[in-house]
Amino acid sequence: MNENFTFIDGSITSPKGFYAAGVACGLKKNGKLDLALISSKTLANSCGVFTKNVVKGHSLQRTMKTIKNNNTKAVVINSGNANACVGEQGVTDADDMANFAANLLECNPDEIVTGSTGVIGQLLNMDKLKSGISNAFNQLDSSIESGHNAEYAIMTTDLVPKEFTLQFNIKDKLVTISGMAKGSGMIHPNMATMIAVITTDCSISKSLLQQALSFVTNKTFNRVSVDGDTSVCDMVVMLANGNSENDTIISPDSDEFELFTKALEAGCIILSKEIAKDGEGATKLIELRINNVRSAKDAHDILNSVARSPLFKTAMFGEDANWGRILTAMGYSNVDFDPNKCSIKIGDLLVCEKGTAIQFDETIAKSILSEKEIIIFIDLNDGSYNDHMWTCDFSYDYVKINGSYRS
Amino acid sequence: MNENFTFIDGSITSPKGFYAAGVACGLKKNGKLDLALISSKTLANSCGVFTKNVVKGHSLQRTMKTIKNNNTKAVVINSGNANACVGEQGVTDADDMANFAANLLECNPDEIVTGSTGVIGQLLNMDKLKSGISNAFNQLDSSIESGHNAEYAIMTTDLVPKEFTLQFNIKDKLVTISGMAKGSGMIHPNMATMIAVITTDCSISKSLLQQALSFVTNKTFNRVSVDGDTSVCDMVVMLANGNSENDTIISPDSDEFELFTKALEAGCIILSKEIAKDGEGATKLIELRINNVRSAKDAHDILNSVARSPLFKTAMFGEDANWGRILTAMGYSNVDFDPNKCSIKIGDLLVCEKGTAIQFDETIAKSILSEKEIIIFIDLNDGSYNDHMWTCDFSYDYVKINGSYRS
Repeated sequence: MNENFTFIDGSITSPKGFYAAGVACGLKKNGKLDLALISSKTLANSCGVFTKNVVKGHSLQRTMKTIKNNNTKAVVINSGNANACVGEQGVTDADDMANFAANLLECNPDEIVTGSTGVIGQLLNMDKLKSGISNAFNQLDSSIESGHNAEYAIMTTDLVPKEFTLQFNIKDKLVTISGMAKGSGMIHPNMATMIAVITTDCSISKSLLQQALSFVTNKTFNRVSVDGDTSVCDMVVMLANGNSENDTIISPDSDEFELFTKALEAGCIILSKEIAKDGEGATKLIELRINNVRSAKDAHDILNSVARSPLFKTAMFGEDANWGRILTAMGYSNVDFDPNKCSIKIGDLLVCEKGTAIQFDETIAKSILSEKEIIIFIDLNDGSYNDHMWTCDFSYDYVKINGSYRS
Repeated sequence: MNENFTFIDGSITSPKGFYAAGVACGLKKNGKLDLALISSKTLANSCGVFTKNVVKGHSLQRTMKTIKNNNTKAVVINSGNANACVGEQGVTDADDMANFAANLLECNPDEIVTGSTGVIGQLLNMDKLKSGISNAFNQLDSSIESGHNAEYAIMTTDLVPKEFTLQFNIKDKLVTISGMAKGSGMIHPNMATMIAVITTDCSISKSLLQQALSFVTNKTFNRVSVDGDTSVCDMVVMLANGNSENDTIISPDSDEFELFTKALEAGCIILSKEIAKDGEGATKLIELRINNVRSAKDAHDILNSVARSPLFKTAMFGEDANWGRILTAMGYSNVDFDPNKCSIKIGDLLVCEKGTAIQFDETIAKSILSEKEIIIFIDLNDGSYNDHMWTCDFSYDYVKINGSYRS
């Protein structure tokens, strides 16, 4: 699959016609970067996927409304404050955030995407926020460094930045896609699971852009589970400004659309695995794979149950091949399956065959589980559906990080 | 409610005609008590509720089959090994366990209830188990101490024993109910959530006994969540041997049945709260109460989601009044509710009113959260259904205990 596109060093400013900045405006108490601005030279076709949480942050709710029928000039995201559950003032603040940026960028406020992430239930300090937007506007440029800064500015408890940039050709035109993401706690599938911004200079219709993003999100971001919690502010937005001047992709059946989607998926797999790997307190990336299930829903529900099980995740942290916890978590997934047909492998090591324990070498198990990336294979031998999910272990540090998040 | 019955010091041997013993037979590596035998002088009416996990332990599966149409002479439970997922040998071993006990107790094997708890996927050492049953049989007596020993013998990661004994009168007959439970990890509602044995000398029909136990379990054990995991071996069994010689309770509409059910509920509330409080690594008991919800299912699903949220539970451990995590967890419960009508109180402290943050005194919040028992009140102001759930916080020790359970 990789033969048709190439990963390169870059950032979200790598696609032609994109500018970015990341600044510190004092919303984060520690003085770190907390405001990201990403803008496009020309109005970009845009789309998004958003949290399915019933409770939604005010900045995100605003974007959900405006992005549907508008193109996008810029994205403003602050960290340090979620702008959520603060009543009418939160709605006003989200509007002000867009208005202020639109004024500087000389566009319609509906052409500004807003996002906020951080603590819930506290009013945004609008003076700080506006000074941040001003500073970011003044620093906007197309350097790779500025793209990185934007990424740092949306991070909260993330330990490492999560970015990808790749390129491919559509006929004689070089197309670039780049993405950045934040999110380490509160990550769970079937939601737009974190904040991600993806930029591309590809020319593609708004509806196909949405189609590609929704398709890819389902296979990537929605296959990540850190702790089963889902945030009220999580979204993935994508901007395509057409500056690569390829013939606009307008057919879902075209080779170009297939290539675009595959490239986007490859990039989002990287971000997804990085998110799982950087789960709060995580020491390991765990890939769950299930095969031969009766239905797609069953496959998903079973993996979901395993990926959420604190007992499974603490065993992974302890490097303990306690596969009984995998089967147990499968068993309470509300899926009707036959445990007597189920086999489980930890890496290459068969530990359970047809529901029955297999004697295995604990030394080999320990050695597999001491790796930083572990693959668990589950085979139900009772159908034709497969699925996968990325998650992480549960460590002392998860508790530490989340025991006092607000302080 | 309490005016009609009295709690007393006692154990499951306190009801007339019950004997118990708890011995160490080497199934637990640390040499602690690991085999419990509880028997009744006369055949007892009996009933049970069992795990809804698709995967079920062999000892439990056997009991599920036999208890329906048989009375019970004795209960044999081992800890240290779950007798689960070991194939046909596990079925044979469960049968042997019952046969061996039945031979000693001179009863039909179908009159023996079997249970096992501990590690999954390892064969029971039947020699050890049988020597344990023999020893326990020889030690059977009606002392309170022997009842306590039986409780210790079913404990796994529990730190404290969980028992209650209460008495009330049916006309001139004194009736006693006593219960004991184990279970600290892998506890989650809508399952028979742990192993509990309840004895009573009340004379009551088998069908009403089942009706009372199912009703009470739904309000007590199924309202406990420690980590969202549910075990493959969990069950509550109840034996009523009629030795108090009251007029047999045969009508579900009788005052006697109402009193019996209320007394049983009061006892099971104690066990349930003790289980939540003794959750693996728990430092606090958290009681969640929700009021004014559109349906019973909505109320339950919302509490369930909050009780399972690792982010909420770690915040409780950190004594951080981060109520946004409560609202967030409610929001991904798949219940359609209006967050703008939702109010949340931590103890007496209002922190969120109609979906909007309330400025509150952090010192007061900290003081409430530093208590060992915390009540969270959620009001949806949008219906007439109420519910409750008991859970605990998530600590470093949860991770520690579960990182290396098998070793």
